[in-house]
Amino acid sequence: MATEYKTRAGQPFDRAAFESLLRRKVFLWQSFEPYGAVKGLFDYGPPLENLEAEVINIWRDHFIRHEKMMALKCSMLTPYEVLKTSGHVDKFADFMCKDPKTGEILRSDHLIKDVIESRLTSDREARGEKIEETEEDPKLKKKKAKAAKAAVRLDEATKKEYEHLLATLDDQTGDDMGALIRKHDIRNPTSGNEVEPPVSVNLMFQTQIGATGKEPAFLRPETAQGQFLSFQKLLEFSDGQLPMASASIGYSFRNELSPRSGLLRVREFLMAEVEHFVDPQSGKRHPKFASVRDTKLPLLDRKTQNEGGSTPQIKTIGEAVDSKLVDNETLGYFLVRIMLFMEKIGIDPAKLRFRQHMANEMAHYAADCWDCELLSSYGWIECVGCADRSAYDLSVHEKATGTFLKVREPLKEPVRVEEWVANLDKKKSGPRLKKDQGKVEAALKGLSQEFKEKCSLAMEKEGKVEVPVEGVEGGKVELDKDIVSFVKETRMETMREYTPNVIEPSFGVGRILYSLMEHCYWTREKDEARSVMSFKPTIAPIKVLLVPLQKDSRFAPVLADLEAKLDDAQLSFKVDQSGVSIGKRYSRNDELGIPFGITVDYESLEGKGVTLRERDSTKQVRSSLEEILDAVVAMCKGKENWESVQKRLPAFEGKVEEE
Amino acid sequence: MATEYKTRAGQPFDRAAFESLLRRKVFLWQSFEPYGAVKGLFDYGPPLENLEAEVINIWRDHFIRHEKMMALKCSMLTPYEVLKTSGHVDKFADFMCKDPKTGEILRSDHLIKDVIESRLTSDREARGEKIEETEEDPKLKKKKAKAAKAAVRLDEATKKEYEHLLATLDDQTGDDMGALIRKHDIRNPTSGNEVEPPVSVNLMFQTQIGATGKEPAFLRPETAQGQFLSFQKLLEFSDGQLPMASASIGYSFRNELSPRSGLLRVREFLMAEVEHFVDPQSGKRHPKFASVRDTKLPLLDRKTQNEGGSTPQIKTIGEAVDSKLVDNETLGYFLVRIMLFMEKIGIDPAKLRFRQHMANEMAHYAADCWDCELLSSYGWIECVGCADRSAYDLSVHEKATGTFLKVREPLKEPVRVEEWVANLDKKKSGPRLKKDQGKVEAALKGLSQEFKEKCSLAMEKEGKVEVPVEGVEGGKVELDKDIVSFVKETRMETMREYTPNVIEPSFGVGRILYSLMEHCYWTREKDEARSVMSFKPTIAPIKVLLVPLQKDSRFAPVLADLEAKLDDAQLSFKVDQSGVSIGKRYSRNDELGIPFGITVDYESLEGKGVTLRERDSTKQVRSSLEEILDAVVAMCKGKENWESVQKRLPAFEGKVEEE
Repeated sequence: MATEYKTRAGQPFDRAAFESLLRRKVFLWQSFEPYGAVKGLFDYGPPLENLEAEVINIWRDHFIRHEKMMALKCSMLTPYEVLKTSGHVDKFADFMCKDPKTGEILRSDHLIKDVIESRLTSDREARGEKIEETEEDPKLKKKKAKAAKAAVRLDEATKKEYEHLLATLDDQTGDDMGALIRKHDIRNPTSGNEVEPPVSVNLMFQTQIGATGKEPAFLRPETAQGQFLSFQKLLEFSDGQLPMASASIGYSFRNELSPRSGLLRVREFLMAEVEHFVDPQSGKRHPKFASVRDTKLPLLDRKTQNEGGSTPQIKTIGEAVDSKLVDNETLGYFLVRIMLFMEKIGIDPAKLRFRQHMANEMAHYAADCWDCELLSSYGWIECVGCADRSAYDLSVHEKATGTFLKVREPLKEPVRVEEWVANLDKKKSGPRLKKDQGKVEAALKGLSQEFKEKCSLAMEKEGKVEVPVEGVEGGKVELDKDIVSFVKETRMETMREYTPNVIEPSFGVGRILYSLMEHCYWTREKDEARSVMSFKPTIAPIKVLLVPLQKDSRFAPVLADLEAKLDDAQLSFKVDQSGVSIGKRYSRNDELGIPFGITVDYESLEGKGVTLRERDSTKQVRSSLEEILDAVVAMCKGKENWESVQKRLPAFEGKVEEE
Repeated sequence: MATEYKTRAGQPFDRAAFESLLRRKVFLWQSFEPYGAVKGLFDYGPPLENLEAEVINIWRDHFIRHEKMMALKCSMLTPYEVLKTSGHVDKFADFMCKDPKTGEILRSDHLIKDVIESRLTSDREARGEKIEETEEDPKLKKKKAKAAKAAVRLDEATKKEYEHLLATLDDQTGDDMGALIRKHDIRNPTSGNEVEPPVSVNLMFQTQIGATGKEPAFLRPETAQGQFLSFQKLLEFSDGQLPMASASIGYSFRNELSPRSGLLRVREFLMAEVEHFVDPQSGKRHPKFASVRDTKLPLLDRKTQNEGGSTPQIKTIGEAVDSKLVDNETLGYFLVRIMLFMEKIGIDPAKLRFRQHMANEMAHYAADCWDCELLSSYGWIECVGCADRSAYDLSVHEKATGTFLKVREPLKEPVRVEEWVANLDKKKSGPRLKKDQGKVEAALKGLSQEFKEKCSLAMEKEGKVEVPVEGVEGGKVELDKDIVSFVKETRMETMREYTPNVIEPSFGVGRILYSLMEHCYWTREKDEARSVMSFKPTIAPIKVLLVPLQKDSRFAPVLADLEAKLDDAQLSFKVDQSGVSIGKRYSRNDELGIPFGITVDYESLEGKGVTLRERDSTKQVRSSLEEILDAVVAMCKGKENWESVQKRLPAFEGKVEEE
């Protein structure tokens, strides 16, 4: 992959150089460095923190405001019971293998991948192929080196099998992986020991609320659950009308066993999640679908993947929904909105695709799922999941708590309903059933129509029936006709009750930011050391670089005036007054992605305007301070672009920057 | 307090009515209601979530952008060692008393306050005074009722003592509180049992990172520590120059034993914290202090409080700093900026004061501290702490980790330094000291100048000295002149090294939002049921209400056009098409604080413009759609106010709203 991935300027991407830039310009670093950095936790420095804030503001505007979503903020600390019901206590887990002799804990899929990859590398060595050096966890590299020290050539069949194994690894269950480990004699690469079979380890951070020890809790693994539990409030705020959508931007947590891949796999991360509630009987149509129907998307479907392909088809979302490739209009509408958002923040459209989940890969609650994947030097990475969670969550929470989590809707015309009901004579049954009364009542309510009809017949014939009742001795109770009767009743129904289905676009903000940084990075031709971060002016962490021609106190009043005006215009700026050449000052600030530079020179002191330099082209225009500021404001708000500014303001041919 | 606190319109504040509005319009609610709401955790619904986002954006602009602070985002999960060093493991705690018979856990200060307050209430009853009913935790009310059932009159001395006790309770240590509990026979009000003496309980949420159990961690109790540990990166980004400031907007956690007071005391909360690093030798001057010197602030100093007073003095910050009432310019500058921020978001200036911390009340690290307090129906509440943390944090982290957390600055002129040094001859000492070699070396380095001078004399006389060495047997080591010599050396020092001091304004965002909502709330004269949330247009969660005169499909195209234009202008809006009167539609949306209403009527269909209604005055103007939109945009950006719009656009006398 490392060889295929190119920068926006078409150059080979040098991850080491890129990471060096991120370090040098303090975009990010591992948290708590002085105490020995903690894996999977990152701090954002000023450039990345500001970039995130700009991206979040665009997200809010693009989704919450434009789509009239209901913004929510829910708690991160979440009681045990909530996540037990949602399924996360049982299923939000990774498989790990323990090395019984050293006590080391290894993620099962990582273990398999590492060992098999190192065997393939060793095979390539044995065949005399050149081995590509990739930037990786040095510890891991050491492990691999150890495992690969004696180059071993594989036979063709084994090589093919290994390649297939790697391609399908994400799709394996714990038992599958256990079988693979036994079959291929996969051992802990550091110790050479056999490992225990994969066991599931929950990935939530556990804690407790209060000091009593009676309120176990987790840090939430997703923001969704809080949104579901707010369903009634949301429905109230929407005057009972569906479709409606909530949106939440907040942190979630995942206690990774051994995090890798920098920002792409972390333990604490910002998500932006939408829960769009629809009536399942509506066909999940979307009122604004017509407006996006002709938008083309790169879609990599399940079928293509099953056949081993990885080239997406370019289709309009209209075609995709009509052919049922994408299940419904609402899912389709969101795929388009996601793509438009990505383009708005500056993601390279050629490095974006939508991939349909494989059956085995979907979350435990999902009915269908498309990921928006972005290409980076790590390969194609899921950055937005767009799942149809069906009615799963609302149903299980309603069942667990007895809270009504449905929509009640007046029917246009009342409907006559005929159905079997079980009538319990509580006065008589009470003394006989005693403490089981409630359980029996609930059991009777839950019986199917068919079963009730059968009971009615049995009652007529035998005067008694046996009914399954959860939680009583023996699991069933015999009831005679004295205390229960089964009759067919007719009633007019005027209301319809249903559990909405939920379509959920879920954004991993950190992954998007990381991909965005890679997409914006390139180096100037003829000078690889001069790298640039081409952030769009709308999202750039700092908008303007102010450079006085040289150190000279005469520039001070003009600079002060300019600074006051930039402050009034609410533009962030940086002043570089250091003694080095203007070219050098621009060049080192290109690495921060500052889109515009304003130079103050001796002519500026005579009221002859200032120079404006654009980062990507390094072209300049010159005009009055006011006109330059107006142009900068317009470009930073996305109301005008550089081409247009260049046309209306006089060009300026300055000295060569390389000086 | 409840009787004193008034709305912005000067009416008595009815907290029950206010809370009912917050519930009805889903501003907030306790989290996880379907599972039994968890105390101290709150969810924000759309109005409050959007309000928070607007307030945060203003904060970012007012502090981060305008003051060129370095924005940081640090991890919430924090390793044990970091918080051990910072002092939080030992000192971030509350005192609690256990009821040994019931196992109940009571916060010591709450226990004392409840019991003493109920005795005072009982006394007032016995004197025949009317008891004010206040909205409170029903459980607590019950407790009080129980304790107060037999009205008991207190003698004057006891009454005075109790009143003094309540006024000074915040200032008590655990032992103090234990003494008070014994002296006044304070018992658990629910059981009547004596309680155990106060013990300290840590208030951090504990968890662990990874699956090994070897990485204990906490959820951070403040964002500050992450900022301190990023010190080196910040200094790099600032080209080594001080003063510099970092700023972080993020969540912190506090595992309250028994949270009360709604949003004012919660377990998970958003903070906005600034760490401003200064050279302690600079006198903590601030370059922009001159620009704020004449700003007047309400300052309640320590002295006034000690004398039992609570009326702040109105002084310019210049006077306050000159007289050393406020310790230094930087602290003073921030107090002014805090006040300006509060005014910008719509806090009532008459409900704001700055209170100096009492000596005993300051955090374990603070050198001086002023709180910005806001008045609400709960009384004066700390919403921003502005502390001088001195060099505490950087020093302890440097000591614990060995990481260099100082500033290194070239001296203007080299300084000649004469000092005693101990030279250890390691070749000779090694074989003799063996494993203690390192400890001896460190001990010699740490000796004071005076001690070294004495050693030099002793060595001359006796040929040996005894030096205290930590960690060796007996705690000291005898060294003879063969292996160590003490000599006076002269060297030229060209660099100065120092640990910066830190001034920290720390904002509790939830408390500010709660106070803001109370400050914005009032009811229309003659109609208490018509309540209004007077959010400034710049922070209002929804900017525009669109109301077609009545249900009529002919309005659809005009509405669609208006909606598209509002969307283009990036203004949030709500359409109210329900069948009720315009007056009613305005009135129920006044509770959401929507500042502007645009009415589309039959004349609008003929191109005769639309009506704009302002929420607080209910006055209207009428003009073309374009002009109305321009006015709304200008007001929502804070570029124009309603008075000015009223002057330039024609007034419109509509029907009476009360209809």
